[in-house]
Amino acid sequence: MSVVFNQLEDKIEQIKEEVVKWRRYLHQHPELSFEEERTAQFVYDTLSSFGNLELSRPTKTSVVARLHGGQPGGALAIRADMDALPIAEENDFAFKSQNNGVMHACGHDGHTAMLLGTAKILSELQSEVPGEIRFLFQHAEELFPGGAEELVQAGVLDGVSQVIGIHLWAPLEVGKIGIRAGAMMAAPDSFNIVVHGKGGHAAQPHLTIDSIAIGAQVVTNLQHIVSRNVDPLDPLVLSITKFHAGTAHNVIPGTVEMAGTVRSFKPELRDDVPHLMERIIKGITAAHGASYEFEYVKGYRPVINDEEVAVKLRESLVRAFGEGVVEDAVQTMGGEDFSAYQTAAKGTFFFVGAGNQAKNIVYPHHHPRFTVDEEALPMGVKAFVYAAFDLNQL
Amino acid sequence: MSVVFNQLEDKIEQIKEEVVKWRRYLHQHPELSFEEERTAQFVYDTLSSFGNLELSRPTKTSVVARLHGGQPGGALAIRADMDALPIAEENDFAFKSQNNGVMHACGHDGHTAMLLGTAKILSELQSEVPGEIRFLFQHAEELFPGGAEELVQAGVLDGVSQVIGIHLWAPLEVGKIGIRAGAMMAAPDSFNIVVHGKGGHAAQPHLTIDSIAIGAQVVTNLQHIVSRNVDPLDPLVLSITKFHAGTAHNVIPGTVEMAGTVRSFKPELRDDVPHLMERIIKGITAAHGASYEFEYVKGYRPVINDEEVAVKLRESLVRAFGEGVVEDAVQTMGGEDFSAYQTAAKGTFFFVGAGNQAKNIVYPHHHPRFTVDEEALPMGVKAFVYAAFDLNQL
Amino acid sequence: MSVVFNQLEDKIEQIKEEVVKWRRYLHQHPELSFEEERTAQFVYDTLSSFGNLELSRPTKTSVVARLHGGQPGGALAIRADMDALPIAEENDFAFKSQNNGVMHACGHDGHTAMLLGTAKILSELQSEVPGEIRFLFQHAEELFPGGAEELVQAGVLDGVSQVIGIHLWAPLEVGKIGIRAGAMMAAPDSFNIVVHGKGGHAAQPHLTIDSIAIGAQVVTNLQHIVSRNVDPLDPLVLSITKFHAGTAHNVIPGTVEMAGTVRSFKPELRDDVPHLMERIIKGITAAHGASYEFEYVKGYRPVINDEEVAVKLRESLVRAFGEGVVEDAVQTMGGEDFSAYQTAAKGTFFFVGAGNQAKNIVYPHHHPRFTVDEEALPMGVKAFVYAAFDLNQL
Amino acid sequence: MSVVFNQLEDKIEQIKEEVVKWRRYLHQHPELSFEEERTAQFVYDTLSSFGNLELSRPTKTSVVARLHGGQPGGALAIRADMDALPIAEENDFAFKSQNNGVMHACGHDGHTAMLLGTAKILSELQSEVPGEIRFLFQHAEELFPGGAEELVQAGVLDGVSQVIGIHLWAPLEVGKIGIRAGAMMAAPDSFNIVVHGKGGHAAQPHLTIDSIAIGAQVVTNLQHIVSRNVDPLDPLVLSITKFHAGTAHNVIPGTVEMAGTVRSFKPELRDDVPHLMERIIKGITAAHGASYEFEYVKGYRPVINDEEVAVKLRESLVRAFGEGVVEDAVQTMGGEDFSAYQTAAKGTFFFVGAGNQAKNIVYPHHHPRFTVDEEALPMGVKAFVYAAFDLNQL
Repeated sequence: MSVVFNQLEDKIEQIKEEVVKWRRYLHQHPELSFEEERTAQFVYDTLSSFGNLELSRPTKTSVVARLHGGQPGGALAIRADMDALPIAEENDFAFKSQNNGVMHACGHDGHTAMLLGTAKILSELQSEVPGEIRFLFQHAEELFPGGAEELVQAGVLDGVSQVIGIHLWAPLEVGKIGIRAGAMMAAPDSFNIVVHGKGGHAAQPHLTIDSIAIGAQVVTNLQHIVSRNVDPLDPLVLSITKFHAGTAHNVIPGTVEMAGTVRSFKPELRDDVPHLMERIIKGITAAHGASYEFEYVKGYRPVINDEEVAVKLRESLVRAFGEGVVEDAVQTMGGEDFSAYQTAAKGTFFFVGAGNQAKNIVYPHHHPRFTVDEEALPMGVKAFVYAAFDLNQL
Repeated sequence: MSVVFNQLEDKIEQIKEEVVKWRRYLHQHPELSFEEERTAQFVYDTLSSFGNLELSRPTKTSVVARLHGGQPGGALAIRADMDALPIAEENDFAFKSQNNGVMHACGHDGHTAMLLGTAKILSELQSEVPGEIRFLFQHAEELFPGGAEELVQAGVLDGVSQVIGIHLWAPLEVGKIGIRAGAMMAAPDSFNIVVHGKGGHAAQPHLTIDSIAIGAQVVTNLQHIVSRNVDPLDPLVLSITKFHAGTAHNVIPGTVEMAGTVRSFKPELRDDVPHLMERIIKGITAAHGASYEFEYVKGYRPVINDEEVAVKLRESLVRAFGEGVVEDAVQTMGGEDFSAYQTAAKGTFFFVGAGNQAKNIVYPHHHPRFTVDEEALPMGVKAFVYAAFDLNQL
Repeated sequence: MSVVFNQLEDKIEQIKEEVVKWRRYLHQHPELSFEEERTAQFVYDTLSSFGNLELSRPTKTSVVARLHGGQPGGALAIRADMDALPIAEENDFAFKSQNNGVMHACGHDGHTAMLLGTAKILSELQSEVPGEIRFLFQHAEELFPGGAEELVQAGVLDGVSQVIGIHLWAPLEVGKIGIRAGAMMAAPDSFNIVVHGKGGHAAQPHLTIDSIAIGAQVVTNLQHIVSRNVDPLDPLVLSITKFHAGTAHNVIPGTVEMAGTVRSFKPELRDDVPHLMERIIKGITAAHGASYEFEYVKGYRPVINDEEVAVKLRESLVRAFGEGVVEDAVQTMGGEDFSAYQTAAKGTFFFVGAGNQAKNIVYPHHHPRFTVDEEALPMGVKAFVYAAFDLNQL
Repeated sequence: MSVVFNQLEDKIEQIKEEVVKWRRYLHQHPELSFEEERTAQFVYDTLSSFGNLELSRPTKTSVVARLHGGQPGGALAIRADMDALPIAEENDFAFKSQNNGVMHACGHDGHTAMLLGTAKILSELQSEVPGEIRFLFQHAEELFPGGAEELVQAGVLDGVSQVIGIHLWAPLEVGKIGIRAGAMMAAPDSFNIVVHGKGGHAAQPHLTIDSIAIGAQVVTNLQHIVSRNVDPLDPLVLSITKFHAGTAHNVIPGTVEMAGTVRSFKPELRDDVPHLMERIIKGITAAHGASYEFEYVKGYRPVINDEEVAVKLRESLVRAFGEGVVEDAVQTMGGEDFSAYQTAAKGTFFFVGAGNQAKNIVYPHHHPRFTVDEEALPMGVKAFVYAAFDLNQL
């Protein structure tokens, strides 16, 4: 195998340009979640050109490729997500989005390109590859209930014992890789609240039940959940992100519509929060003679990295990049449907640094000026290729 | 003159049917503020048919008629407003609105019809009428800055010493008339507030300045103005009627837009309120690192009835209807641009009861099922005709 | 009678010095509510010295004197209250309180002195006085349930048809008298609230139910009653005046104790407020898993002046002082147990101006530097004496 | 050395009864922080009886003992704190506090007894002991600025390279030991807030600046710091634990006094919090025309265990007790002045389980019914003795 590793650096160096080209093509042609038809076709065609992959289309906008290596080994899945966001790009480089109002503002274009590069290299090294490598080109990570769940249901992890995935990560400088065992990304739940008061003339508040004044109290009292009701050692976010009421200066509206998100890691806490929320909403509306509707929708599971795979993967990363590159990933309250794979195989997710202060690559994910430092792309390919050899050996 | 009064009962009885017919025609053809072209034309044509009125059109959608009586006397103006509201009528009587989404939901159709009836009767009695009676058919009472101000600017009260006006009043049962000296209807001001926080991902509240949470505190703290900051003996209303922020479950919006109304009688209080509001908005936003915009728009002046005219008018009403009918009007926090006339002549506004529990005429003004008991219409005509004789004598 | 009135000016001028002396004596020797033993004795002794009054002691600390006039007439009661307050006086004039921590900080010393002066003058004019004049020297106005109620129960108004009383009034400049028919002073109710949370270590808020955070929300939400729940045209005050919780920096207390007052005029509103309060307290505590105790104590009735007596008294005052002195009294949210008398006879209460900007007599009632301009004292005497003649004639 | 370890089990078994006796004696005679004179004397006398310790009294109520072992080695300090709390004990066992209102409600009696037992065993094994063992019997852990800081200033760690300490820990079941590298206990800061409004009559809120209503808003708005302003991944507690205002039902107080605590691990966060607090306090009081005083007192540093010592100590604990006993300690927002030693030597603090559900030993630290399972005492001795040998070898 040492022979193989000797070739790897060269192969990664050689493929870099192609990966960048793929990424830019994808960046120019973003497609929304569950609508990634051209993207999936591009991936399918590119994978076909490698010659020795077994391809399938588990859903209309996803692609799975299987490589059967020449060496004994386990079955490892590597996942990339492919969907873009309903954001109007404000970058002005040559390969900016040509699909108006749709943008690869989260780096999935890079994920797809890196996994294509990985597949190409491993195809070329097929005889040396241990066991089976399964490449998952997933649709719809951005839109609940997500593509991952659908692919797991479709059986894409059947027979697979380990699964890994990368997120290009803007808050981390390029040149760094972050990984951690255990809880890494939060469960992103969402909720809707309606406060029903009683509308009426704004000059006669006593004949109304003022939904805005009551809704404001709901917002304020909900702050207590994080500040008072939960263990300060258990991270929790509760953000109210929508509050809409009223159409005229002189009419008190009868109804307020609110919505928001809850982020947590711990299952018991996650289960408690809707009860705490409803107790507050119910109490506050009752205090003022109003009524309410409350809907709480559980989103993706939290990404909890498998201890064993995380340790092995970290060793592999250190071998590939050296000690200075690999660090403990900071937890994030953001969510990821990679967690769906973790219900079916031992999974570990990790971050490849993609920000670059010096190049002004500083915009956060989902920002209209988001981009990644393309120097991160060959690092992702290298991490995947090393992992294919290191994790899949018996 | 006693001869005249003997005829009045008969004349009012005779005209009743015509006034109802006019009112229903107007109800079927409502027009929005500043757009009352057909209405004004109808009024103009009807007035023309009376033969001895001097007509003018001070603005495109208003009409003024002058009757020069045969007896010595002062100059009295009587005002009716003519505009309708952007409300879709939900009544189903035969004469319901034929102008989709526009409705006479405040009774101005009745005001106009009553003043037409008054003009017709007084035309017929011209030789007995003291001094000049000026009939003001005003546009745009519902929409700030209002038609009254415009007519005053146009000089419609030049030479007039007294002005009166009626509101058909749903909260008052038909058969009653309410009048009071002094403060009667509030000054209806309006405001707009923008809270500028900093938007961002809902999973990272610490990287944002959460405009919704701050906006909620603004709403809550503004309650203190009425509950703590002003003399409990000085009526004040501060209603926040619009609160809009946010478009997505996982994005904390950077901006909240609010609006609302303030109602007051006392000039000093009215002047204080915007300062109290801004102190609170400024303090709360500063407390949380946000900034703000605040716009306060003074609306109509309060309706403050002239003591002398109110006393004389009350005596006239008692003479016309007897003691049991006339009562002290309850003050209201609603506004009226009749107040504009009160800056140019001694004015008094009064309410003619138009509700009727027994007939289920119970809906408030501006409600899609609002209507008036038409028995109120001849009462309004009678009140105006008596006032023409009683107030205008030297 | 005109003979009498000719003498009155002189008599009032003559007695002025003595009234001032009495007032200063009382000021030096203040006694708390229900403890006015020396005060009552002083009054009793002084009244005895007038020779022709029929004295009684309905309670240990009150005195009633009856004067049977020589002319036909009704029965009029005139009331003065005599108690002082638990306030440490900060004035430094010669006659300041000699009873440490107790002070005539509301002017009752003046009320008593004025009524003594009135009794003396009327005693001297006994043969001219119409009907019976009953002088009520009442204890305990400052402390609920008040002395007035006790005196009414004791029958001091039996056979009396009219009752009047004065408050020396600091917000009104000396030289002015304020009177009004109808609602004049509010019903002063009080309440106590206990919020029961669950105490615990301040580093573990999630194991507690934070009574302070919840109590703060109770305070904030209670503001809605005045700002949103009641008719802006009906004056209402709800003040939370006590909030006590906690003993250590690192212990979240399990309990908050609050108290406060509610002031209103309208009986229906007064009945509604405790229900509105409890709905809010119940809802807010339930919202946060806490419980509560709520006690609402109705205080004195509002002072509602009898229309007929008020009109007659105003005419009398105008006769005594001229038009320029008498004005419409401003309503006040303060309370007075004079209202108890109004349940047993036709009563009217009025204000005699006692403030004086020029002399820096500007401190509000109950302030440690409160005092009255003694020029007000002879005005009170004159008002009472005139009323004795003007109201009591048949 | 294996010879030594063979003896240890026996020695610990033998000393158990004496350690329990010492603990009960101390429990019966608790003394408040900085007043531990009899306790210190008892410790001094007991240590003297061991014969070969070098004793000193760095402060009036603390004792330091030095044992110079017969083997080469480093210098290790072991600390026990000795002070009790101002709590009235509600336990009813025979050795309950005889000092009324003072109680060992945090387990320091056990800490002292365990360290005495450790000193006795190591004294007996002097010739085998590596290097120097320094026993720190510290006063005043419960009262800021704490005894530890004083001892460090006094030089008790001069020449010492490692320092360890135990807390008997009620939330952990007896039989378990918890240890962790890095942040373990929070920095416990405290604060005082005064809101200055303007007092006045409760019936005239508009003439006051209502400190209670404003103070309530301060409490409510301060919740935003934890819920909105800080990274949800950085634990923070902000508890307001005192709120005092008002003395009468009818007087709005001019001033509110608040106090509370802040708990954090991260230095930058700790530095930010007072600024965030003051911004809110300033903004809210300004919003309502009030002013404020704000005092923030930094308490003990957070307990951050040295990585190297923690790893060695954990290995030692596993050797002493086996894998099943030693677990990762849960972080706590509680504070400890052990952190002062960590500024002068590499320190690690750890928890010895002292709760026991089966025996109903379930009350939290600082509770009037707090106690420890005495089975924990020999475990603490054993941990210290093993550490003396394992950590102090060169």
